[in-house]
Amino acid sequence: MNAYEYADSHRAEFLEELKDFLRIPSISTLPEHKDDMQRAAQWVADQLKMAGMERVEIFPTPGHPIVYANWNGAPGAPTVLIYGHYDVQPVDPLDEWQTPPFEPTLRGDDLVARGASDDKGQVFVHIKVVEALRQAYNGKLPLNIRFLIEGEEEVSSKHLDDFIHAHQDLLRADATVISDGAILSPDQPSIVYGLRGMTYMEIEVKGPRSDLHSGGYGGTVHNPAQALCEIIAALHNPDNSVAVPGFYDKVRPLDPAERAALAKVPFTVEEWQRQTGAPQPWGEAEYTLHERIGARPTLEVNGLISGFTGVGSKTVLPARALAKISCRLVPDQDPFEVEELVRARVRALTPPDVTSEVRGLNYAYPSVVPINSPAMDVAIAAYERGFGARPVFMREGGTLPIVATLQHLFNAPVLLIGFGLHDDNAHAPNEKFWLTGFYKGITTSIALLEGLSKIPVKTG
Amino acid sequence: MNAYEYADSHRAEFLEELKDFLRIPSISTLPEHKDDMQRAAQWVADQLKMAGMERVEIFPTPGHPIVYANWNGAPGAPTVLIYGHYDVQPVDPLDEWQTPPFEPTLRGDDLVARGASDDKGQVFVHIKVVEALRQAYNGKLPLNIRFLIEGEEEVSSKHLDDFIHAHQDLLRADATVISDGAILSPDQPSIVYGLRGMTYMEIEVKGPRSDLHSGGYGGTVHNPAQALCEIIAALHNPDNSVAVPGFYDKVRPLDPAERAALAKVPFTVEEWQRQTGAPQPWGEAEYTLHERIGARPTLEVNGLISGFTGVGSKTVLPARALAKISCRLVPDQDPFEVEELVRARVRALTPPDVTSEVRGLNYAYPSVVPINSPAMDVAIAAYERGFGARPVFMREGGTLPIVATLQHLFNAPVLLIGFGLHDDNAHAPNEKFWLTGFYKGITTSIALLEGLSKIPVKTG
Repeated sequence: MNAYEYADSHRAEFLEELKDFLRIPSISTLPEHKDDMQRAAQWVADQLKMAGMERVEIFPTPGHPIVYANWNGAPGAPTVLIYGHYDVQPVDPLDEWQTPPFEPTLRGDDLVARGASDDKGQVFVHIKVVEALRQAYNGKLPLNIRFLIEGEEEVSSKHLDDFIHAHQDLLRADATVISDGAILSPDQPSIVYGLRGMTYMEIEVKGPRSDLHSGGYGGTVHNPAQALCEIIAALHNPDNSVAVPGFYDKVRPLDPAERAALAKVPFTVEEWQRQTGAPQPWGEAEYTLHERIGARPTLEVNGLISGFTGVGSKTVLPARALAKISCRLVPDQDPFEVEELVRARVRALTPPDVTSEVRGLNYAYPSVVPINSPAMDVAIAAYERGFGARPVFMREGGTLPIVATLQHLFNAPVLLIGFGLHDDNAHAPNEKFWLTGFYKGITTSIALLEGLSKIPVKTG
Repeated sequence: MNAYEYADSHRAEFLEELKDFLRIPSISTLPEHKDDMQRAAQWVADQLKMAGMERVEIFPTPGHPIVYANWNGAPGAPTVLIYGHYDVQPVDPLDEWQTPPFEPTLRGDDLVARGASDDKGQVFVHIKVVEALRQAYNGKLPLNIRFLIEGEEEVSSKHLDDFIHAHQDLLRADATVISDGAILSPDQPSIVYGLRGMTYMEIEVKGPRSDLHSGGYGGTVHNPAQALCEIIAALHNPDNSVAVPGFYDKVRPLDPAERAALAKVPFTVEEWQRQTGAPQPWGEAEYTLHERIGARPTLEVNGLISGFTGVGSKTVLPARALAKISCRLVPDQDPFEVEELVRARVRALTPPDVTSEVRGLNYAYPSVVPINSPAMDVAIAAYERGFGARPVFMREGGTLPIVATLQHLFNAPVLLIGFGLHDDNAHAPNEKFWLTGFYKGITTSIALLEGLSKIPVKTG
């Protein structure tokens, strides 16, 4: 019995096990679920043992534990690292759920539960595939496998980077597989090969020593809230590009071939309007909506606060004003260099009648996974096997810092192989995972891991 | 015994009575002091009865009561309305008080207590002067007197305007006297003849239906926080004037004589810096600091709020952004017209990719009291008698809506005759009233009321 046959004949058992996983309310952001987090980590560890992994270990962190497993029984064969997470989003507003979030419920082709798609269902695909491969390969595997399943993805992966840097030898691989996302549509698989990086900053403008009465001083003081607005307004050009000298210097241009490939995945204005509800799009006119999100850097205001913000009126002339801003970055921008460019620009824009400060808060490198590599060819073929269609390549606007971290550390491709759909309600009520995607995902993963067992080996 | 002699010989009693008044913690903004507010109103009413007023009445309002009193025994003589307030500011931070705020304490020439200067001490001056005049005039007064002592001045005089409009016949007067402020310096009395009006608004900019992930949409949505900053930045011209078409159309120009008079009361840059702590002044370069505050209209940002404003970072693309803004107005600007001008300007500045709304919250007319009138001549002479110096004329940047209300209703001068000093800590810990000012104020008030008894009569 090959792995596909094994998986096909165990669909019912797999589904029941996944339901068990989904019944654990492993909400990482809520302290009252601390025990559930331990329980979920233990459940994953037990599953990995049952699947046949050699070493299975739950590593404590200052936050929620990381589950690690490996099987190193194929010397000379490639090594693949599979990353995922067992924590889930909170469930509020609870009254919008049609069934209880931690009582997995089948509704047509959908399994409805918090975490079904993000990310328990997708993590579980690979665990079951390892089990199927071990059966097919007489208790062995055709390649070396490492699992890294964290419990803090929904809380910014707070302790993941430290863990990765401290345990490079345990994690080093010829390719990494991450299944924590969606494909373009049920019939059209897609591979995300570009993710943006980030520099998150706050700008503070200060004027008078303390809040003043706007009657007693208004007209003689450069109002810090106004000065902040003037600075922020000057951070974009009339053509909507970012007005920070040097900002685009390291942006890798989109070549015509890549633009043509991205054009196959159009983000139409109608769809954009349906999703955002905003009057009309904005941005760099010479780039498509897909390109603006995935392939162009941005500078966004994430928050503003100054003075009186309650109901009604208070005539304060505020002493200070604060903006949270973040730049989404694309290769080859460096998040720390961008911070310095923004700082220099804000300094140049700050008039002598106020002071300003730019403070860096968070940094992530952008990443682009080369789409021409043996590993990527395997991924394409695996999707064709699983979904019957050749995947399209997409760039996404979000940031997944682990992608850049692993690329930098191991110089190996990171394959973003999602099995969910965009309407899975990943962070909303009535989250679901389509069972067709679950089973096609298993087929895809078998093809992927069998294929990756034949790529050139770099790891020792 | 004339009134001056009576007052001089009763200094000790007056001081003890004032201490009684100051012991009542009549903090209008704190619900737990509701009974104290009643007690303070009753105390004022009792004092007015003892001083010899005929009709004394405590009018309830939806908030704190208004104390009204009159003496109409001088038919054919002028009528003067005296306005003040018996409520006081909160006392926090309490630990910065050197003595308990409601245990009046003498420290050199200063009587330290919450409300000593603002406004109990100054209100009390006039009550005692009426008592002195009644003694001097054999139980009568040389003119008709009306008192309007409210309990909500520190909470925006919420119910005062309704009361005034409903009781015009009780309040009509040939002049109004308000003692609720400071003179320029101990040796230099001053009369405020100009106060700014106000239009308080909020501007809301909306973009997407709900907050978006800045990674997933950033670069395609006109960020409402950014759009708000762009609008606010465009509300001032490079020369720091207000960039709202029509805004200055009704501003009464300062004539050379008035500018020369204001120049006698310079607000130096050094003093401005000492008071504000800001790096350097800002504003309309062709006007002095005193003129910018007192004689020029402004547009100030009082508050900003949008998106994420907590500690750390959250990559939200906010759905909306709100600014509180207020225009300080000078004669002959109309607060409702200014609202429409700002609304039109914001509408013109709003690009088609967001929406905006301007909502009016508060309105007050500006006021300028003519400095050439029989009543003002009396005020000048009264200060000369009380302080031994001719008062200078000042414009202040704040707003005292009752001034414009009374001017509009009764077309009679409003005399802003303060006895406090600028360092009285009116809204801060260790508020005090200088006893020299208290006694000189009594002398000034006697001269003022005796003088006003001889001005032309307009009231019926």
